[in-house]
Amino acid sequence: MKENTFQKQIKFLIEIDKLKTIERKTRIIHGPRLENDAEHSWHLAMMALILHEHANAEVDIFKVIKMLLVHDLVEIDAGDTFAYDVQGQEDKFEREHRAANRLFGLLPDEQKNELMDLWVEFEQKETNEAKYAAALDRLQPLIHNHMNQGDTWRKYGITSKQILNRNSEIANGSEELWNYAQEIIQKSLDEGMLSE
Amino acid sequence: MKENTFQKQIKFLIEIDKLKTIERKTRIIHGPRLENDAEHSWHLAMMALILHEHANAEVDIFKVIKMLLVHDLVEIDAGDTFAYDVQGQEDKFEREHRAANRLFGLLPDEQKNELMDLWVEFEQKETNEAKYAAALDRLQPLIHNHMNQGDTWRKYGITSKQILNRNSEIANGSEELWNYAQEIIQKSLDEGMLSE
Repeated sequence: MKENTFQKQIKFLIEIDKLKTIERKTRIIHGPRLENDAEHSWHLAMMALILHEHANAEVDIFKVIKMLLVHDLVEIDAGDTFAYDVQGQEDKFEREHRAANRLFGLLPDEQKNELMDLWVEFEQKETNEAKYAAALDRLQPLIHNHMNQGDTWRKYGITSKQILNRNSEIANGSEELWNYAQEIIQKSLDEGMLSE
Repeated sequence: MKENTFQKQIKFLIEIDKLKTIERKTRIIHGPRLENDAEHSWHLAMMALILHEHANAEVDIFKVIKMLLVHDLVEIDAGDTFAYDVQGQEDKFEREHRAANRLFGLLPDEQKNELMDLWVEFEQKETNEAKYAAALDRLQPLIHNHMNQGDTWRKYGITSKQILNRNSEIANGSEELWNYAQEIIQKSLDEGMLSE
């Protein structure tokens, strides 16, 4: 039997519940466990709402929030690729693109295209909205790791140089947030959570 | 030292990480554990985005999503009150109002007022946006419980009559979603997940 629009939508919404099972490398702030992608996406959407005055450019904040709600869905199939995993980064695009086709493909065509466009825009980091969204996606784990005495950094032996390198693109979305990120990194270094 | 706008915002964003530790009574669909409020809020925001054509009235979907991102924050202080806990429902409003004042009060005044207004609008269920948001908040655990062989219902001895009663307000936001909810409830009854 051919699925109608509503059945497709419900199937998609049940499928994406899996985002709650995709663990990140970062711990939540107020507990001992790792964060999952679904609650991470919620947190980023809240950050987007609260911090938008600090974006470099005026942004369509609704679009930013939609991007952030959707940006990690591909990890349902492709898994979370650690930011500092050089090998994992190599085939990330291909794995995630396959995942986007399968997952968004569960939806009626128009919505499939809408979500695909949002995801591609986020990944390309060219528009003001994508730059601001990407800045938040970088900043959030920095805050978490700093609040958690740098545990992920220490566990994987990440240095402040790697972190500065990886996160300097925050400046593309928000100079103010990049200044704050550098403060956190310096403080983490001073407090021995990080090595150079 | 007086906190500036940015410091207040960051303090708030760190505080609301606690939403990830507030457990609901419903399990996630694709795993054995209980759902938390943060990932629940993300899931509702996605539902709002995907299902809005089924709302009774045309809605400002951005506003609906903001409401849903914010609607459970008060549970950081007030805890999750089970939908079928009659005693817990009695002082819920007072407990949650105190929580809203403390939490939103961490923010600069303008944002404090914005979030308070969103939360109050959601709670009052009078606008089209609030009715649609509330419908999703009711529908989501129904889907989860049905997908999970009715485990929360069985654990707490909830009957189909209680569920129909509690959830009939879905119709205020979306007649279509209420039809679907009734189908799920009937199917759960037929399959022995629920007693009348």
